[in-house]
Amino acid sequence: MNGHEYDLATAVRPTGDHTYAADLHDGWDIGGVPNGGYLLTVAGRALAQSVERPDPLTVTCHYLAPARSGPIELTTELVRAGRRHATAMATVRQDGNEVARVIGTFGDLQQQRDGRHLATLKPPEIPPPDECVHVTPIPDHPQSPPPITEKVSLRIAPEDLGFALGTPHGRAEIKGWAEFADGRDADTSALPLFADAFPPTVFNAGFPIGWMPTIELTVHVRKRPARGLLLCEFRTNLVSNGYMEVDGVIFDATGEVAAMSRQLAATPRGQT
Amino acid sequence: MNGHEYDLATAVRPTGDHTYAADLHDGWDIGGVPNGGYLLTVAGRALAQSVERPDPLTVTCHYLAPARSGPIELTTELVRAGRRHATAMATVRQDGNEVARVIGTFGDLQQQRDGRHLATLKPPEIPPPDECVHVTPIPDHPQSPPPITEKVSLRIAPEDLGFALGTPHGRAEIKGWAEFADGRDADTSALPLFADAFPPTVFNAGFPIGWMPTIELTVHVRKRPARGLLLCEFRTNLVSNGYMEVDGVIFDATGEVAAMSRQLAATPRGQT
Repeated sequence: MNGHEYDLATAVRPTGDHTYAADLHDGWDIGGVPNGGYLLTVAGRALAQSVERPDPLTVTCHYLAPARSGPIELTTELVRAGRRHATAMATVRQDGNEVARVIGTFGDLQQQRDGRHLATLKPPEIPPPDECVHVTPIPDHPQSPPPITEKVSLRIAPEDLGFALGTPHGRAEIKGWAEFADGRDADTSALPLFADAFPPTVFNAGFPIGWMPTIELTVHVRKRPARGLLLCEFRTNLVSNGYMEVDGVIFDATGEVAAMSRQLAATPRGQT
Repeated sequence: MNGHEYDLATAVRPTGDHTYAADLHDGWDIGGVPNGGYLLTVAGRALAQSVERPDPLTVTCHYLAPARSGPIELTTELVRAGRRHATAMATVRQDGNEVARVIGTFGDLQQQRDGRHLATLKPPEIPPPDECVHVTPIPDHPQSPPPITEKVSLRIAPEDLGFALGTPHGRAEIKGWAEFADGRDADTSALPLFADAFPPTVFNAGFPIGWMPTIELTVHVRKRPARGLLLCEFRTNLVSNGYMEVDGVIFDATGEVAAMSRQLAATPRGQT
């Protein structure tokens, strides 16, 4: 841990054999509700500590109730520890109510070396960061970008900013560069945060701007990201029956895939 | 439940407040190890019963150790029951050892009606079922398709059968039609099985044929499938550092997406 905001905001302190205390910090929220990716990274920190493995290979969070800033309690359960992998589960409680349940399998991505390689996904071709639009909160503006954009710096591809200007392009996608605003390097623990930090894809498909509660988010972490900006691409392929999925790919500065994510969310209320 | 093989092979019987007994049947295996999708459907049945909701909206299974045919014990935990959704977890034990941990959120896809619709994925253009290759076990043949192909009938697109003929096309994908061999209709409970029933994508990228242990499989069930054959498409976009992902889309007979799946697996041993 050091003095960077992310480390402070995701710090967990052991309070017993399998219990941890943490604080969900102000400023990592969207409309007052701590970002789902942020919540997952806090739980991921407790899980990684509990299993003593550095990298979350695949983590899944089911969101049970909206959290708020303030103290949370985490209880971890070691499901299985093997030579290469360890699987563990965490409950996240606030005011005695469970707000999230997380399961993950952890390992060491630095030790996993295998000659086989196949990569079909290419980084999206968007303008360089300084030609993208830096999204930051606008004081007292009703449609201000959420506070979390002060922590996670987003530079959105101009073509995907139509939703904010009333001219969505009609495709449920959004792309851009991301990094910690205070200069901290992204590591594997933080990738689930970046996987949930962009504005919803469907705003660009003309959906009304509003809260879309995530039901479940799964992130596969595939490499320790190289230093530098992350290039992120999110797309929704299916909205139906009141649900939608969001698929994300996070490339690191070398152009390799650092993480893939998928979430299931409920479409906004009032559209039934 | 009725007399169809799938119903018999996934039957769970309550043995206590939150415990169920089941039998993993012979014939649903690959190389003696019950198929991961099959194991997930059995756990899904226990979970759906325990939460009294018909449809698995999103289910995730972490595979902890290879199972075998024979009795298993399931313990369920209700994580949260709300108006629209219920989330529950299951442990799956065999001979006292936990072989899988499952978490899922369940609901009712028939009741979820929402005016918003967006669908970018189109069914792959492959020949009709009778022009695809019906894969069935070959008695006493060392490279016979696995026993599960007697339960789940697969008709693989000819272009994707190269792996079996020594002429893989080089793309990590496989497409085909699927249905229960005994004529049972696929329902939402069964979709996780179909999501894991095809030969590995990477065989068509020239990877050696061998067992690829699934670490985690997540399936989003998006609609109750219409009667008829399912059209399935699986693709691997990234193999690196000893891991690979498999992305699946299952279309029903109307051409709509019934389920999306993603799994993380370890690449075969001996390639380090």
